[in-house]
Amino acid sequence: MQIVEAPDEFQRVIESMRLKDKSVGFVPTMGYLHDGHMALVKRSRQENDITAASIFVNPTQFNVSGDLTNYPRDLGRDLDLLENCGADFVFVPSVESIYETDTQNSVVHRVNISVSNINSVFEGAHRPGHFDGVALIILKLFNLVGRCRAYFGLKDYQQVLLIIQLVKELFIPVEVVRCQTVRQSDGLAMSSRNARLNDHQLSLATVLYRSMFDALRLIESGTVRIDALKERITSQISKIEEINLEYVDVVTEGTLETPEFAEGPVRILIAAKLGDVRLIDNLGSEEIFGNEKAMQSAGVAGLKG
Amino acid sequence: MQIVEAPDEFQRVIESMRLKDKSVGFVPTMGYLHDGHMALVKRSRQENDITAASIFVNPTQFNVSGDLTNYPRDLGRDLDLLENCGADFVFVPSVESIYETDTQNSVVHRVNISVSNINSVFEGAHRPGHFDGVALIILKLFNLVGRCRAYFGLKDYQQVLLIIQLVKELFIPVEVVRCQTVRQSDGLAMSSRNARLNDHQLSLATVLYRSMFDALRLIESGTVRIDALKERITSQISKIEEINLEYVDVVTEGTLETPEFAEGPVRILIAAKLGDVRLIDNLGSEEIFGNEKAMQSAGVAGLKG
Repeated sequence: MQIVEAPDEFQRVIESMRLKDKSVGFVPTMGYLHDGHMALVKRSRQENDITAASIFVNPTQFNVSGDLTNYPRDLGRDLDLLENCGADFVFVPSVESIYETDTQNSVVHRVNISVSNINSVFEGAHRPGHFDGVALIILKLFNLVGRCRAYFGLKDYQQVLLIIQLVKELFIPVEVVRCQTVRQSDGLAMSSRNARLNDHQLSLATVLYRSMFDALRLIESGTVRIDALKERITSQISKIEEINLEYVDVVTEGTLETPEFAEGPVRILIAAKLGDVRLIDNLGSEEIFGNEKAMQSAGVAGLKG
Repeated sequence: MQIVEAPDEFQRVIESMRLKDKSVGFVPTMGYLHDGHMALVKRSRQENDITAASIFVNPTQFNVSGDLTNYPRDLGRDLDLLENCGADFVFVPSVESIYETDTQNSVVHRVNISVSNINSVFEGAHRPGHFDGVALIILKLFNLVGRCRAYFGLKDYQQVLLIIQLVKELFIPVEVVRCQTVRQSDGLAMSSRNARLNDHQLSLATVLYRSMFDALRLIESGTVRIDALKERITSQISKIEEINLEYVDVVTEGTLETPEFAEGPVRILIAAKLGDVRLIDNLGSEEIFGNEKAMQSAGVAGLKG
């Protein structure tokens, strides 16, 4: 595995692979890797001749400075994991090589990007500026990597939609591959932020998945008013005092639209705080009972009349 | 010369050239081509294996809708000129293939780009939204063309700076080549908008170049207070009643900074209206007495004490 620090060198080595007719898979990460990231790398290896990962804790997507400082890091361990997983290249740039910095070492950028239908709702509304920072770093990374397949976990559902929109609207020569969220056996979604939870908190956090799962089962059995699903989830989570629910909502799968009734595939989005750790998760109806059942459930929506 | 209308086909044919190890030159235009554009195509042909031009009147960079409607067009003539000049490919997309449009046929875009140090001054201040539209179309076109040399005329000086900033900050694999403004023998800068001027107006418009040229000569002879240069230009132009000067300013070459004294290479920027036609032009001290003389003039700046 080749470790590359300089952006221009990264651009050059990947381009040289492509000129040898190698297809390129790309897995951008913020490090502190877990099984979710490893699943992306493994899938990229299956589908491409070479796989490049990047590790960069992007400062512009942190709207709360403490969150950036506290973001867990362990580069040595990350490199071992990527090497064992068979990544061919890993890009580990410094902040200064990606952004201009001023005399106080603060990031300066004059190019500003926003995706208007993404940055005003859910994570966009709760983390002002977050998605502008994501869009900026993704454009930079995609320009460095060039034509590739890029792998993203659906745990960051809204981020995936942002990237699909960017790619489509700007004609970026990247195929965005959405990969299902990897979970522990108790349902907790893999996340680098889990490292900041103690064992007790980790066990409490499993309610996020359970409440979404139980709510989606209601669709199967006929209850399709979105409000009812949300109320059920809210009440289930609120039983746990340590958890502070930020939002729960249900969107039409593949969009951020909030229907009144679950008439087709839907996805529940959730954000909650446990102590000072903010967790997000989401679950799609298709994930738990497949495409076919989700469509059947649409039939039940006759109720809505 | 191959004419390509579909964005994905354009992306594919250019990529296939690059995979054959051909270097790519790119000349983006809004059509109604003149000798200025032809100079860009000729230079691209000298420096690259293949040259692709594009003709697209980009709606998002017109802040006044009448200006978009009145923008001159003559695709047949443009294609003849490009063919005669030796362009290999020309991309002539429809508005609908570049932008999503709504039911009223208006352009819809969710990705918004701005370059903060560019869009608040000079053309940015006088044409709100103009440079956001330029940045958006340039990102789209650069993503379609991929790695290339791209040729831009310095007549749109601020646009050139915008594109250099975009490329640098986003790591776009494009080398931006700045080309000197092509002028008629009477000094008038070539512009598609000149087509909307009558003969009388065309002769009046030459004062823009003359006033800039005369002012820059003052630097050579020792007058280096920027205010004095601006006053001189303003008074020279104001003698012509038909011309409405929008702004004149002097920047440090390669920037948009406005120095108090001409201590090194500077560039005069000018915008004026003749009837309802808005013209811009600019002239750099290096263009009229070369690098060396411009630097010498910096010595004269001892006056400023």
